[in-house]
Amino acid sequence: MDKIKKVVLAYSGGLDTSIIIPWLKENYDGCEVIAMAADLGQGEELSGLEERAIGTGASKLYIEDLKEELVNEFIIPCLKANAVYEGKYLLGTSFARPIIAKRLVEIAAKENADAIAHGCTGKGNDQVRFELGIKAFAPGMKIIAPWRLWDIKSRDEEIDYAIEKNIPIKLTRETNYSKDRNLWHLSHEGLDLEDPANEPMYDKILELSVSPEKAPDEPTYVTLSFEKGIPTKIDGVEYSPVEIIQKLNELGGKNGIGIVDLVENRLVGMKSRGVYETPGGTILYYAHKEIESLCLDRETAHYKELVSVKFGELVYFGQWYTPLREALSAFVDKTQETVTGEVKLKLYKGNILTAGITSPYSLYSEEIATFGEDEVYDQKDAEGFINLFGLPIAVKAKLIDKK
Amino acid sequence: MDKIKKVVLAYSGGLDTSIIIPWLKENYDGCEVIAMAADLGQGEELSGLEERAIGTGASKLYIEDLKEELVNEFIIPCLKANAVYEGKYLLGTSFARPIIAKRLVEIAAKENADAIAHGCTGKGNDQVRFELGIKAFAPGMKIIAPWRLWDIKSRDEEIDYAIEKNIPIKLTRETNYSKDRNLWHLSHEGLDLEDPANEPMYDKILELSVSPEKAPDEPTYVTLSFEKGIPTKIDGVEYSPVEIIQKLNELGGKNGIGIVDLVENRLVGMKSRGVYETPGGTILYYAHKEIESLCLDRETAHYKELVSVKFGELVYFGQWYTPLREALSAFVDKTQETVTGEVKLKLYKGNILTAGITSPYSLYSEEIATFGEDEVYDQKDAEGFINLFGLPIAVKAKLIDKK
Amino acid sequence: MDKIKKVVLAYSGGLDTSIIIPWLKENYDGCEVIAMAADLGQGEELSGLEERAIGTGASKLYIEDLKEELVNEFIIPCLKANAVYEGKYLLGTSFARPIIAKRLVEIAAKENADAIAHGCTGKGNDQVRFELGIKAFAPGMKIIAPWRLWDIKSRDEEIDYAIEKNIPIKLTRETNYSKDRNLWHLSHEGLDLEDPANEPMYDKILELSVSPEKAPDEPTYVTLSFEKGIPTKIDGVEYSPVEIIQKLNELGGKNGIGIVDLVENRLVGMKSRGVYETPGGTILYYAHKEIESLCLDRETAHYKELVSVKFGELVYFGQWYTPLREALSAFVDKTQETVTGEVKLKLYKGNILTAGITSPYSLYSEEIATFGEDEVYDQKDAEGFINLFGLPIAVKAKLIDKK
Amino acid sequence: MDKIKKVVLAYSGGLDTSIIIPWLKENYDGCEVIAMAADLGQGEELSGLEERAIGTGASKLYIEDLKEELVNEFIIPCLKANAVYEGKYLLGTSFARPIIAKRLVEIAAKENADAIAHGCTGKGNDQVRFELGIKAFAPGMKIIAPWRLWDIKSRDEEIDYAIEKNIPIKLTRETNYSKDRNLWHLSHEGLDLEDPANEPMYDKILELSVSPEKAPDEPTYVTLSFEKGIPTKIDGVEYSPVEIIQKLNELGGKNGIGIVDLVENRLVGMKSRGVYETPGGTILYYAHKEIESLCLDRETAHYKELVSVKFGELVYFGQWYTPLREALSAFVDKTQETVTGEVKLKLYKGNILTAGITSPYSLYSEEIATFGEDEVYDQKDAEGFINLFGLPIAVKAKLIDKK
Repeated sequence: MDKIKKVVLAYSGGLDTSIIIPWLKENYDGCEVIAMAADLGQGEELSGLEERAIGTGASKLYIEDLKEELVNEFIIPCLKANAVYEGKYLLGTSFARPIIAKRLVEIAAKENADAIAHGCTGKGNDQVRFELGIKAFAPGMKIIAPWRLWDIKSRDEEIDYAIEKNIPIKLTRETNYSKDRNLWHLSHEGLDLEDPANEPMYDKILELSVSPEKAPDEPTYVTLSFEKGIPTKIDGVEYSPVEIIQKLNELGGKNGIGIVDLVENRLVGMKSRGVYETPGGTILYYAHKEIESLCLDRETAHYKELVSVKFGELVYFGQWYTPLREALSAFVDKTQETVTGEVKLKLYKGNILTAGITSPYSLYSEEIATFGEDEVYDQKDAEGFINLFGLPIAVKAKLIDKK
Repeated sequence: MDKIKKVVLAYSGGLDTSIIIPWLKENYDGCEVIAMAADLGQGEELSGLEERAIGTGASKLYIEDLKEELVNEFIIPCLKANAVYEGKYLLGTSFARPIIAKRLVEIAAKENADAIAHGCTGKGNDQVRFELGIKAFAPGMKIIAPWRLWDIKSRDEEIDYAIEKNIPIKLTRETNYSKDRNLWHLSHEGLDLEDPANEPMYDKILELSVSPEKAPDEPTYVTLSFEKGIPTKIDGVEYSPVEIIQKLNELGGKNGIGIVDLVENRLVGMKSRGVYETPGGTILYYAHKEIESLCLDRETAHYKELVSVKFGELVYFGQWYTPLREALSAFVDKTQETVTGEVKLKLYKGNILTAGITSPYSLYSEEIATFGEDEVYDQKDAEGFINLFGLPIAVKAKLIDKK
Repeated sequence: MDKIKKVVLAYSGGLDTSIIIPWLKENYDGCEVIAMAADLGQGEELSGLEERAIGTGASKLYIEDLKEELVNEFIIPCLKANAVYEGKYLLGTSFARPIIAKRLVEIAAKENADAIAHGCTGKGNDQVRFELGIKAFAPGMKIIAPWRLWDIKSRDEEIDYAIEKNIPIKLTRETNYSKDRNLWHLSHEGLDLEDPANEPMYDKILELSVSPEKAPDEPTYVTLSFEKGIPTKIDGVEYSPVEIIQKLNELGGKNGIGIVDLVENRLVGMKSRGVYETPGGTILYYAHKEIESLCLDRETAHYKELVSVKFGELVYFGQWYTPLREALSAFVDKTQETVTGEVKLKLYKGNILTAGITSPYSLYSEEIATFGEDEVYDQKDAEGFINLFGLPIAVKAKLIDKK
Repeated sequence: MDKIKKVVLAYSGGLDTSIIIPWLKENYDGCEVIAMAADLGQGEELSGLEERAIGTGASKLYIEDLKEELVNEFIIPCLKANAVYEGKYLLGTSFARPIIAKRLVEIAAKENADAIAHGCTGKGNDQVRFELGIKAFAPGMKIIAPWRLWDIKSRDEEIDYAIEKNIPIKLTRETNYSKDRNLWHLSHEGLDLEDPANEPMYDKILELSVSPEKAPDEPTYVTLSFEKGIPTKIDGVEYSPVEIIQKLNELGGKNGIGIVDLVENRLVGMKSRGVYETPGGTILYYAHKEIESLCLDRETAHYKELVSVKFGELVYFGQWYTPLREALSAFVDKTQETVTGEVKLKLYKGNILTAGITSPYSLYSEEIATFGEDEVYDQKDAEGFINLFGLPIAVKAKLIDKK
């Protein structure tokens, strides 16, 4: 293996990244390992983390609060784009990787490190997202992905290794779903979910939310305000986007909203199956589309549907820091200039129902839409419209179909 | 006005089409009016209709049962395509117009009529859908759309006209939502719905379904089987597609499923707002997408997302009988060859939750998807994949970003 | 007809718009007619125009030099987008209509006019482009399109009317192709071109260019410089975009470049056939794509191909002043940030051949592209790439095809 | 390395594949090597090939004539789709790889071989196309790509190896462009072409065609007939598609047609530069689009432009044997049902000019297109059309822009 003197490791404090520290030191000639933990709102205790990292052999731990950046530079652009992957997945893990990658590169530069390591397996999307993010800022940086290199092939073997190396973390051979959590979502994979024929055991799985059955019998009404596509208020009170997500996570979670069970196509070529909880995000996406339904004209709205699909794909594929994603964001931002207004929602046992939309930029005109006469729309115009819109059909029928 | 001797009228027996009969006779020199009512599963009494039509001045009434054709030639192709308009509308009215138009032309040909009339207003989509359908089969046919011609501008004026002409139908000045119903759906427009700021009064509106609040506290499980994208069984019992829709309407309606509140962009240029009930259709669309998630590969699935948008747009715009719609159907049909399997669903108070998917053509491989080793996937391959997939990013970072 | 007191007329001084002046005065109670002629580089004498307009009954003539605006605000955005209609048409007439429409509205506002008139026929695209442009800035403005109103149906009838009204213009009953010319192009329609089976008689038709047969036997080399997608220099000498187009028109015209014979689909529903000369524009489009081939990454380039099609459609359809066109321009502008460099071209008898491309932002790396070893690309990576890129194919072959 | 007993090798008889034979035997324990050479119309002597293959150590040589299959199952579908990569490349090498891969698998099955080898480098697209083709029919087949394995890194080292192994082929250290030739095209890469700043030395490069300068001073006229998108006749005489391509190669080559100089984006992530000669193919693509301009309606034509881009990408990426390519072909085939007619072309010094198009399925109607009155098109309809088509613009201007 190459000569590596100092490695920056994306560190969570879990079993995986804990055993990577001694493994790196063992396999790279006692190299120095600097750990970096990102606070993305995963809601776990980060206070004992430094002790643990150093106890496992790291020389230093950076704890980086990236919540604001995650929301403003990743989540909001996705929300404006209505970006979604395969019609269901709100990209919670996808956009959390590039942001960490960028910070890893910054720390590696500051620390003069010669490699970056991560604990992703060789079968998942996250390795790609991490490494594309690293390449975008440090194309020549050595990347170490122990799961693609070592002989450890299971949790049991990890624990054996941890015991062998005296790694001071609480070990349990109990298995659990593989999870990824941040401010936006919580994902679950593995165990019984690995067979798509199995119904998810939501009672065991859910953490951010309750199942619709357990949600209150009374609906919750909530009003969201948007300015240029960005959520700004809940029930008339201004909050930062981070706070808005946190508050909507509570409301959504309580009402059983945002639970998705998905068989998805990974970038690395196989299908996988997961359960996602995105309570606040699901509300925000729904509300944003509602306000857009009033504020975007048809041509823009229809084209944006196609952009949403591509945008979601790019984010899922880890292509955040690419010219195409940036150009699509420029498109999206332009469309959002009039996406301003209020959406009242009724949350009830897994359902989001619209209870009223208003906007100063509304393109809906009651006068024009309704049955009777108005000043702008002359019903006689419809005949001409239909005749020309239908001209190709008529011409074809006249010239061809008779043959 | 042109000399018209015999007109075929799309007839429902309601106030609109009832007054059109005498109006046609009055305005076209006592022309003969032949009425045609389509049975699309709207569930209304068609038995007294002949009497009413003739009592109003029609010389004849055709009652055409188009349910099978509607389902097999319109609904199933849309379902296979996951065709939807503006992300929400399942096209229930849209595909009901071309099928009627085609039959109107057939009757006009048989009856040697020189015009076709319909009762659509000049502000809606339906006039376009009717007329494009007519042009596709009879491009030179004279089309009469009284709402774009006469001076009647409101329900009140219609009733006045009906009284003046002694039209023998039950008249009421009570207003109600403007509705369109068939086997697939029921739509509601007008009254308080005309202001998008108003929450729909679902208790007053809903007919095919109950609101989630009124749905049973116990979930309903149902298993749907598909063959090549076509639903074939419910809970293992074979039914015709028409029966499947009818049964799922019951199940879905009971469980508060398929209620949509939508501000949509009409083809004729304005926004309108409607509430749609599509209980069975919503279940079928959901289930179809689930089985596709197992059976379609990623490239096909992602491209098909774009085709769905276009397909939905074409159907909404009345462009059913066009070369592009037919070519897109050829695309879709090809993708459905392996869309075969079973989807178990849990219906609960407005929610559809997946409770298991299986398929003999499943592309999901538990062996490949899971964490450990397998024979097909070598995790070491991921490094090469990432390096080449990320090469453009690295090259750009090397060559450009340093400038 | 409505009471109209003052009309602003889009005026060219030709027969069509000359007879419209007395026709307007006759049909709108002696209304005042203000003529507006736009200088878009059509290269015709505008000096006697005022006299002629007033001699025909106009109270005033505005001559508006819109060349700079045409180039900077319409042509350059299209060039950056590689916008083209139906693969061949470089939109020369399409973007010349909205710019005139906007100025008509400005003059109407200044003059307090109550209508705008234009001389487009009811069968073409231009009426739509004019009127959409007017609606964008003056949605309530009365628009008068005499060709859709009067009984004149041919050139002969126009001349009869002109004689009857003593219109002081040189009249000739000779027919000619219908033309539209500006800085960017010259289009020809009508006469023998109306049958697509006829070969164009280029010797009679061409004005801006010679046919390839008549071009010089010696090639011309020319080097174009671009900055952020905008042409800035010819052979190293800086020029304004207007000058660049003028100079390239000369070079291209001389070398038989940019002649297009096209059966196109008009917005109003029929096919038409025309011959277009766009000598400079063709060179610019070609060169711009060449520089992009070096400077855009693959994902951006491929997506931009789709945007080009939509952009061209929007421009052709007259939807310049729409949110979607503006949002697509935002996308395009973002992609052009590194589209800087030089393209050397060889022009020879209708051919444009690339003779070298360079760019400080080139993403082409000779080191990586060539056969041998290099530092960035490890050929062994290809195996992993292929295995994962091909995984869906292998999985399908394993799981399904054996069935 | 794995135990391999019998390998089927894609064999050309050139230096690369000649040294692979002894290398395979040396590195895989004296495994048997069966060579397979495909006749794709590359126009080279295949008669001495068997002797050479066996002289180099192969136990057998299959010579497979795949010309008919290449044309009917690959080229014609691409032609119907107007499939092109990055606007310029007609895919000549791209579709030649999957067809060989499929035959390799068939021979491997027949011969009971346990591996397939090819001579593609690790930097190119062809390795991917070969291997994806192999995976589609033999997902578990071992694939050997010596260029990714051995230490040979240049032509000189290859020759040294050939001398060391006494390989009986004519050796020359002269370098030349790297070429790929078949019935459809001839590509050139390498040497001075590796710098995009260099003008191609066409006099040295071209083999299938002459440069425009050297083409005759007299134009050649040729008329092509199509049936359902497939070329069937030249100047009224029926030929097989293979013959048509051969004859058009002659005509096109003589007239300097179909020379492309392209900086393209490879699938494996880097840009490369090549010169392509596709004389007959360029004529066919041009003619096919011309006949489509008459026979396809606008909606189909515009959507097909997008499909062309995707289709070209799939072919270039080696994804021929995939569900998406097959579904897109189903779309394309449906559109071709009326693409029947004749196109007369004028070929002159690199130019293709249309000299007349006719079709029994033409949607062009001279009556409708021209200026005057006709029966189908009422110019007054245009007003209604414009008012509704422009309604969103007017509504926005009324409601929003005044704010």
